[in-house]
Amino acid sequence: MRFFSDNAAAVHPAVFQALAEADRLDSAYDGDAWSQRLDAAFSALFEREVTALWVTTGTAANCLALAGMVPPYGGILCHREAHIQVDEAGAPEFFTGGAKLLLVDGPGAKLTVDAVEEARSRIRGDVHQVQANALSITNATEYGLTYSADETAALGEWARHHGLPFHLDGARFANAVASTGASVADLTWRAGVDALSFGFVKNGGLSAEALILFDPELADPIRRRRKRSGHLLSKGRYLAAQLLAMLEGDIWLENGRKANKAARRLAEAAGERLVFPVDANEVFLKVSAPEAAALRSQGFDFYDWGVGEARLVTSWDQDLQAVDRLAAAIAAL
Amino acid sequence: MRFFSDNAAAVHPAVFQALAEADRLDSAYDGDAWSQRLDAAFSALFEREVTALWVTTGTAANCLALAGMVPPYGGILCHREAHIQVDEAGAPEFFTGGAKLLLVDGPGAKLTVDAVEEARSRIRGDVHQVQANALSITNATEYGLTYSADETAALGEWARHHGLPFHLDGARFANAVASTGASVADLTWRAGVDALSFGFVKNGGLSAEALILFDPELADPIRRRRKRSGHLLSKGRYLAAQLLAMLEGDIWLENGRKANKAARRLAEAAGERLVFPVDANEVFLKVSAPEAAALRSQGFDFYDWGVGEARLVTSWDQDLQAVDRLAAAIAAL
Amino acid sequence: MRFFSDNAAAVHPAVFQALAEADRLDSAYDGDAWSQRLDAAFSALFEREVTALWVTTGTAANCLALAGMVPPYGGILCHREAHIQVDEAGAPEFFTGGAKLLLVDGPGAKLTVDAVEEARSRIRGDVHQVQANALSITNATEYGLTYSADETAALGEWARHHGLPFHLDGARFANAVASTGASVADLTWRAGVDALSFGFVKNGGLSAEALILFDPELADPIRRRRKRSGHLLSKGRYLAAQLLAMLEGDIWLENGRKANKAARRLAEAAGERLVFPVDANEVFLKVSAPEAAALRSQGFDFYDWGVGEARLVTSWDQDLQAVDRLAAAIAAL
Amino acid sequence: MRFFSDNAAAVHPAVFQALAEADRLDSAYDGDAWSQRLDAAFSALFEREVTALWVTTGTAANCLALAGMVPPYGGILCHREAHIQVDEAGAPEFFTGGAKLLLVDGPGAKLTVDAVEEARSRIRGDVHQVQANALSITNATEYGLTYSADETAALGEWARHHGLPFHLDGARFANAVASTGASVADLTWRAGVDALSFGFVKNGGLSAEALILFDPELADPIRRRRKRSGHLLSKGRYLAAQLLAMLEGDIWLENGRKANKAARRLAEAAGERLVFPVDANEVFLKVSAPEAAALRSQGFDFYDWGVGEARLVTSWDQDLQAVDRLAAAIAAL
Repeated sequence: MRFFSDNAAAVHPAVFQALAEADRLDSAYDGDAWSQRLDAAFSALFEREVTALWVTTGTAANCLALAGMVPPYGGILCHREAHIQVDEAGAPEFFTGGAKLLLVDGPGAKLTVDAVEEARSRIRGDVHQVQANALSITNATEYGLTYSADETAALGEWARHHGLPFHLDGARFANAVASTGASVADLTWRAGVDALSFGFVKNGGLSAEALILFDPELADPIRRRRKRSGHLLSKGRYLAAQLLAMLEGDIWLENGRKANKAARRLAEAAGERLVFPVDANEVFLKVSAPEAAALRSQGFDFYDWGVGEARLVTSWDQDLQAVDRLAAAIAAL
Repeated sequence: MRFFSDNAAAVHPAVFQALAEADRLDSAYDGDAWSQRLDAAFSALFEREVTALWVTTGTAANCLALAGMVPPYGGILCHREAHIQVDEAGAPEFFTGGAKLLLVDGPGAKLTVDAVEEARSRIRGDVHQVQANALSITNATEYGLTYSADETAALGEWARHHGLPFHLDGARFANAVASTGASVADLTWRAGVDALSFGFVKNGGLSAEALILFDPELADPIRRRRKRSGHLLSKGRYLAAQLLAMLEGDIWLENGRKANKAARRLAEAAGERLVFPVDANEVFLKVSAPEAAALRSQGFDFYDWGVGEARLVTSWDQDLQAVDRLAAAIAAL
Repeated sequence: MRFFSDNAAAVHPAVFQALAEADRLDSAYDGDAWSQRLDAAFSALFEREVTALWVTTGTAANCLALAGMVPPYGGILCHREAHIQVDEAGAPEFFTGGAKLLLVDGPGAKLTVDAVEEARSRIRGDVHQVQANALSITNATEYGLTYSADETAALGEWARHHGLPFHLDGARFANAVASTGASVADLTWRAGVDALSFGFVKNGGLSAEALILFDPELADPIRRRRKRSGHLLSKGRYLAAQLLAMLEGDIWLENGRKANKAARRLAEAAGERLVFPVDANEVFLKVSAPEAAALRSQGFDFYDWGVGEARLVTSWDQDLQAVDRLAAAIAAL
Repeated sequence: MRFFSDNAAAVHPAVFQALAEADRLDSAYDGDAWSQRLDAAFSALFEREVTALWVTTGTAANCLALAGMVPPYGGILCHREAHIQVDEAGAPEFFTGGAKLLLVDGPGAKLTVDAVEEARSRIRGDVHQVQANALSITNATEYGLTYSADETAALGEWARHHGLPFHLDGARFANAVASTGASVADLTWRAGVDALSFGFVKNGGLSAEALILFDPELADPIRRRRKRSGHLLSKGRYLAAQLLAMLEGDIWLENGRKANKAARRLAEAAGERLVFPVDANEVFLKVSAPEAAALRSQGFDFYDWGVGEARLVTSWDQDLQAVDRLAAAIAAL
């Protein structure tokens, strides 16, 4: 029973259906009818005009956005455990041409205005030091915590005050929306976010993520960078169709809710073992090595997370009976 | 009736079938069972051990290969009209960190040993000039010409003599194989090729191209660069499955033959109008503006190619009745 | 007797004098009194406010300027034989993060509005092709031709019309000014130039070139890039002092005149042998191999330039008797 | 009385003398007689064959070396407060094409085998994380501590064991040699160092630093990168002459001793106020704001170093009477 990654989950049937429907002659790249509908579909969701680009990975979405925001000699404030710092193999440095990630601390991989201000204020303004030129946060965070609309807006206001573009890595944005109950608008542009990496693949998609740009000036440069980085697929209609299918009937949100619900059940069973509050679809547990082994011997797959901790991730297609069994097994430890 | 691009063609049914079969729980990235089978499947095809990586675009395949071959301060010999020079938005420069394309001339976008030697010998060896550090050709070329196994081997021998890695852009490699009748081994590693961008998307695939590495030392660096450039998809099994499906029963080759056959019919009708011999699935015609308009008025879609020329591209799924009608229309001009 | 390069010439005595005077305690980098006087000194020369930065090479000046002008995914229109294309080892690609040089033809390495417009108009505007984002010319050109103020202004107007920043490589700007008799203002900002690489080292300096910025928005980014590329020397006062010494009493212009005068004498002797008109301090001659050998046997050093041509370069410190002897030797061939 | 930076010190008279002697006709770039003598002169000093390249800044020396050592997708282990991380404006990222600095802690900006091993072992080997591909230390460190030959050798052995090239930033290498009494060979290649940035400018030079390569395979790539980064000066003989002058009669070492001696006097006066042991020419003091003001009111110039600390740096040309007066003033606080 799989609890190691939402990347491993299956594809939602509506996505497959959409692929089949897109299997008709059309223009190449993003000139097709599906790709051309993306802006409108996401603009409706976000309650304002946006530019919506398909890409195939969250890393591409994140780093195209960041490359559009900072000069090669610039810096990006982010959490020390942000995915862009820890698990993207230096992709931000590659896409930006060598910008520096300026690392900020905070429990649960979550940033606060105080923390980013402290980091920014330590930088001298002279030419010898890399300046802070953008802010990037992740919602939900790498530890499954969420930013509320107010928390995001506080960071957004701080960023605007300092003239910094604001990027949101939403690999698990659906989970954050489902968890906070806030509108996507309130969690993004109304809170000052300029670009959102809107994740679909962990949430039932096949190979399409969306990069949502709220700053229209980013659109042309990022379109060119998408091509230049090899991310403009020639049969783009099969990507656009995936995203449109997930928006239809709010499948993306429903899937986020399902994954969160499974995580909540585990959290309730875990009680004191929880390392962090469980806002979204990740559960970090304190478990000894024998306890972890005991769970694995019952057929549960998950990652160890350093010494004495385990990471459980739930997906949109999680079998709830398996969840109940894992919850019971945790409670019985 | 579409003759403007093989990028616009439909997906082969076997590919869709494979996607459905891959829709099961497995590991993320390229740790899944499908991705793990790629090396063996392509090694069988190429009659030797190869490393086979899925990527989503030919640009990514080309530029990952080139980045693995040349230092940032290096140069890549290629044709002045090569896709990497003309239509990849500077992707080679991006992936390599600023290497220079060293442009060589030749009819039909085809290179010869004499032409590359002439270009190489003009470069002074001192530190002021960018040196030639790799050779890249395209088979079939941007104008639909093919390199025979012997022609490729002559270039390969020249490259080896000068210590240059040799890259083959095979966006239309299936068409080249179908046209020449040579084995894939003879057209690649036996001819000295170190890396092949093996195109599937124009030929019935959905979103998966293959990067085939014959030099084992390229494998680890290019795997890391694939991740770093955002090209390591989390649900890689859906890419690997596409490639495996196309290899199964040589669908890729059959599709190449179909497209070539359609082009040959047009070529026969075109006679004196042909700008280049038609080796593969592209037909370049001399047509006046009124003639082009006449064809379009009969429902045929294609690109103008400069003044007085038109480009017709055929696909694996081309309706042969439409081909016959176009052939007749051309003959009737 | 040396006629192979003005790089090899001696340092003007006033420069040495200035170095000795700068050998006092002061602030590091460009915080010292000498560096702080540069903007004012060059502003006086250029009849308007400019930012003047010292760097140690023309390559650094050129490429810092270009990096400030074009995005990494951009293109720079320049002559096919421009120094930035031919002899800077890919420095433009390095500093810009992979921008592409878009090559334009023209006799004597000189560009015209027609030529650049033709090159620009061939580029499709879509994301697949690298766009023209800047224009760079060299005055005097690599073949010793000069642009008049009017010729420069025509290019500047064209560039402004297309929204392209305009860079002038002035490795031999002193020679161009001396030759044309135009003011430095008329040859630069009044003609639409945004940044000038103002060469001093070939003209009597030791290790300081000036980068002159007419667009104030370029100043901060380029200051940061100068540091980031390792070009902010800690004892900058010794560079600034060189430039100030050369400006004092117009030594730079006097030196340019001296070098041009020597070249003119050679040109007069060369008559029909001249490959190009001699506007500045470079003389390209048609000479057979035996003729070149004959000149060398008389003690004259110079470069062969391809087959059947020779390049003679004169310097500010050229011994005029040697010039006369070379002139006589050429006439006697 | 200046104690704020050794960058601000004067140039040694022998350096000026050497510049005057180099003011003769010779070849450009590094083809001249002075540049050609560098390898031999430094080989004699280092007791083995080395490649010695002049550059104009420590940043250029450091980053050219690092670019030769790590791929763009690689990582460099260094101290969190290393100059390359804190004060080079992202130059390592620029020269390497986006490699990542992997930060390690340790008192006084000094690394130990335990610390680097701990950092290295935390990195997963998969493609998602940037790997450690090189080690860089600074001797003397940014806080004026030195590595002994044994300490360096321990790090060198560790690096070799893990296949990592080993770079030594020696902006104040003369001070480290003077302090430890070790030979330059023992502090570098015998301890496993592959490349040394050998600083001269802080120590009496004008504009020339030396990059010493012990790994012969680094030489050609770094020569090309030097040109490509705009660091190949056309009149290189004036740089080479500076270095040769400093080697002559061990002026570099004598200067290092003088600066260290001045620092030692201050250290003795400072007693309990010392933040770090004073191995070289930097003294970090605990002083309250009123105490710092009191020193400044007596004419002493220095930097505050965070809250409650001050940095005093001594130079080769420090007036010893001023040193004694500062020592007395500190003792009297």
